[in-house]
Amino acid sequence: MKVSAFIATSLDGYIARPDGDIEWLMNADNSGGKEDYGYKEFSDTVDCMVIGRNSMEKVMSFPEWPYESKRVVVLSNTLKETPSQLKDKVELYSGSLKKLVTALENEGCKRIYIDGGKTIQSFINEALLTDITITKIPVLLGEGLSLFGKTKHDIKLKHIESKSYPSGFVKSTYEI
Amino acid sequence: MKVSAFIATSLDGYIARPDGDIEWLMNADNSGGKEDYGYKEFSDTVDCMVIGRNSMEKVMSFPEWPYESKRVVVLSNTLKETPSQLKDKVELYSGSLKKLVTALENEGCKRIYIDGGKTIQSFINEALLTDITITKIPVLLGEGLSLFGKTKHDIKLKHIESKSYPSGFVKSTYEI
Repeated sequence: MKVSAFIATSLDGYIARPDGDIEWLMNADNSGGKEDYGYKEFSDTVDCMVIGRNSMEKVMSFPEWPYESKRVVVLSNTLKETPSQLKDKVELYSGSLKKLVTALENEGCKRIYIDGGKTIQSFINEALLTDITITKIPVLLGEGLSLFGKTKHDIKLKHIESKSYPSGFVKSTYEI
Repeated sequence: MKVSAFIATSLDGYIARPDGDIEWLMNADNSGGKEDYGYKEFSDTVDCMVIGRNSMEKVMSFPEWPYESKRVVVLSNTLKETPSQLKDKVELYSGSLKKLVTALENEGCKRIYIDGGKTIQSFINEALLTDITITKIPVLLGEGLSLFGKTKHDIKLKHIESKSYPSGFVKSTYEI
């Protein structure tokens, strides 16, 4: 089973401004929505998502729920029940990530898409992430929420492929 | 005139460990020294270097002075005179970077190579850097000295080209 992240960052490594804003990212795409930077191809291989509570709240502000055909697990130590409008869309989880991954694999998941900075960092630190695709946006924000955080030791990756787009985005995939 | 940076970072954006160590970078190159990742081609276009005092001290620890045929300016607000072994090799400068760049251009420099994290950040923040080449090493260090720092505002860049190498290094050049 694959446990994957697929995410964009500024050239200085931020996934969002300090307040979580990602409008700079939407504005940087000059393809007029015609280019999806490989998202659909990736998404089609995914049957399950694991996201943090922050990501869930971000996604709830979107006009449409984007994960319609996928099983979605939301990590939260504080939420006691799912927001009413998501009752049939997400399941809450609190506990060991390793156990969660094992359970999802046993229940038939072939590829889990891990989203959200803190969630990705947790999966990296527990050596559970198998691959990460990072699309670098050609802008320096100067500050924000970092994709990566502290690690217990050096983590070597294997570069699989890189692709650049007319917008100046550069997408690189690594196995961990 | 071009004012350029050419530097390697870990995938999480560090140019060195917290203590300045860059051995992880040397160890990551599995080409046995046969691949220079475009350094000579770049270096051949450079006639002048501007580096910080930290970089000067780092380079003094190398077995050979690597900038033999180039004019080298060392930025320092504290050094009063050049170390004796570098007397004929470097000039000290303290003051406005904009004036320095203008002076070097007037004295015939065609391309200045800016090196060292803090020095690069200063040139970016004063809108003096014209291009940057970043070679991404496929390793997460978790902490260290960052290539980029705070900026006064968003800085957009133009992606020129990217190239990946068998070692997994990915080199991207941007104009600012």
